[in-house]
Amino acid sequence: MRTLSTTPKKDGFRMPGEFEEHDGCFMIWPERPDNWRLGAKPAQKTFAKVAKAISEFENMTVLASPEQYSNARNMLDSDIRVVEMVNNDSWVRDCGPTFVTDGEVVRGVDWEFNAWGGLVDGLYFPWDKDDQIAEKVCELERKDRYRTNGFVLEGGSIHVDGEGTCIVTAECLLSQGRNPELSKLSIEGNLKEYLNLEKVIWIDNGIYNDETNGHVDNICCFVKPGEVLLAWTDDKDDPQYEISKSAYDILTNSVDAKGRKLKVHKMYTPSPILITKEESDGVDAVDGTLPREEGDRLAASYVNFYIANGGIVFPMFNDPNDEKARKLLEELFEGRKVVGIYAREILLGGGNIHCITQQLPKARK
Amino acid sequence: MRTLSTTPKKDGFRMPGEFEEHDGCFMIWPERPDNWRLGAKPAQKTFAKVAKAISEFENMTVLASPEQYSNARNMLDSDIRVVEMVNNDSWVRDCGPTFVTDGEVVRGVDWEFNAWGGLVDGLYFPWDKDDQIAEKVCELERKDRYRTNGFVLEGGSIHVDGEGTCIVTAECLLSQGRNPELSKLSIEGNLKEYLNLEKVIWIDNGIYNDETNGHVDNICCFVKPGEVLLAWTDDKDDPQYEISKSAYDILTNSVDAKGRKLKVHKMYTPSPILITKEESDGVDAVDGTLPREEGDRLAASYVNFYIANGGIVFPMFNDPNDEKARKLLEELFEGRKVVGIYAREILLGGGNIHCITQQLPKARK
Repeated sequence: MRTLSTTPKKDGFRMPGEFEEHDGCFMIWPERPDNWRLGAKPAQKTFAKVAKAISEFENMTVLASPEQYSNARNMLDSDIRVVEMVNNDSWVRDCGPTFVTDGEVVRGVDWEFNAWGGLVDGLYFPWDKDDQIAEKVCELERKDRYRTNGFVLEGGSIHVDGEGTCIVTAECLLSQGRNPELSKLSIEGNLKEYLNLEKVIWIDNGIYNDETNGHVDNICCFVKPGEVLLAWTDDKDDPQYEISKSAYDILTNSVDAKGRKLKVHKMYTPSPILITKEESDGVDAVDGTLPREEGDRLAASYVNFYIANGGIVFPMFNDPNDEKARKLLEELFEGRKVVGIYAREILLGGGNIHCITQQLPKARK
Repeated sequence: MRTLSTTPKKDGFRMPGEFEEHDGCFMIWPERPDNWRLGAKPAQKTFAKVAKAISEFENMTVLASPEQYSNARNMLDSDIRVVEMVNNDSWVRDCGPTFVTDGEVVRGVDWEFNAWGGLVDGLYFPWDKDDQIAEKVCELERKDRYRTNGFVLEGGSIHVDGEGTCIVTAECLLSQGRNPELSKLSIEGNLKEYLNLEKVIWIDNGIYNDETNGHVDNICCFVKPGEVLLAWTDDKDDPQYEISKSAYDILTNSVDAKGRKLKVHKMYTPSPILITKEESDGVDAVDGTLPREEGDRLAASYVNFYIANGGIVFPMFNDPNDEKARKLLEELFEGRKVVGIYAREILLGGGNIHCITQQLPKARK
């Protein structure tokens, strides 16, 4: 694997939309007891379900630490590949490579990773193993990589249409823990170089109380070029309302890189979900790791789903809106099988299905 | 990856000869300071040369522990793939999978591994990580595997012609540290099932003072079906003489599975090579690991080479017989490029180029 000093844009590589064809998908097996309750056992069961659901559609590789290798192998279906890889936690969307392609070859973009804010407001320390994941996945797949030394980003903080447009949140990309020395214009310039974009659409905030400083992938995503899904609530007393309203106004007034006006679909969030005492008690308290406290509101959203080849795998919360979400997905993603997975255990760890997955696009159509 | 409960013979899978076409090759990066002198730095340089030489002929994957990952990545050429894998030491010939094929699909045989003799006369303790290497390599390559629970074997203790014949040493396969409860007939039966053989040829011993209990791959190998190379000395005062003479007599009087009389080529060993004081002093002394003592004779042999697609990579010892070995290899392996590598540092660790490599055969011709 070579480390390239050019950029994808210069080399004619672009990040495809998630809805384009994949060669496979990666996940990282959860284990740290200071983030996942009860020694990560309940989360592991949910991760195994997600891995199985996706493996029905495309090749699945689960990365597991040496200590968890045998357990992961035993808990996962035999057609899922388990590969050893040390890690700090299981958010491969954020620490894994963002793959780009020129239609012939696939390469990885290896963003600098600092656990969502480094020493300013990062979620754990250290994060050195996570910062190596992208490189190691590129090696594993024999893909050359671009390394963005000095530019911090997570894969969950961007969503592209594959045709030159990206949506991000200012809350995240302008946060003080990532690239405080860079101007908004410089950050946008880096996105354009590494994802090969013409247009970056900035919404203000992500989901209320999202510990990633409001990753876009929890609030908004592309269904296809020109069409987006936005997490929504009609409850004006919910702090989510103003956030979603502002995003709606920006998105509906935006044109994409191709000059199209965006069509925005509202996806209703579940009712507010709070951490229970039992859940909080199951997590080790460790200095340097974000605590999980009883009564804290979780950043629950149905938008945090994964698009697989011929399928959608989306989170459910045992909420009446679960079925509303399913219907909307079935309507918007015609021809894909929509699979729902009860995902409270992932949510408790700080994210959801999109955050724990990373697609490897197919180079040749 | 599935773990199969049948056997390769029952499923119509056979181990191809090493001289048949490969899809790639594996190595494990050396690091343990109680086996490799000076923190394994000199050995790493030699391993890097071997990896580079083989990578000119076929895909090379080097497995490295998390601690050594970055160092291995930096020391190896960029077209060599580095994949993380914990290990106890670097003998992938012995702890890695033995691949078998039915011509369409490749599978791995995962022999039980106990560090060349377990608690009887094994070379280090523990060996649990090495015993997982075969499984992990099969996972990595998405190959199903056969696991021989209760049957201990190393890949270096067998050499096959790919047409139903295998050569082994009684010294190794009947050693007390491997399968003391199994008769010679049962052991032969297992080999026949897992390698798909008709005929097992037993020679008595391996190279003099070989710490593996005389692995066959250091003394004798197939050039092609019907033709073998045998380590040789004319010096009747060398304990190697009687060993080689006995093997010569057995081999020249043997017929293979196809009824052919074997043609035996003599390959002269280098003059005896002893561990120097400086070399001995460079190795950490650790209880449970075989010591490296000044004056000990090393099991040096040119037979311990690797056959790659279109190439031969063989060990040199700065001995006049280096060139004799090269000429013989060039003569016998017409059409392959013969590359010699000064390999004293591998020898000091207890083996040589064949011991630190493992081929992945190509399924379809």
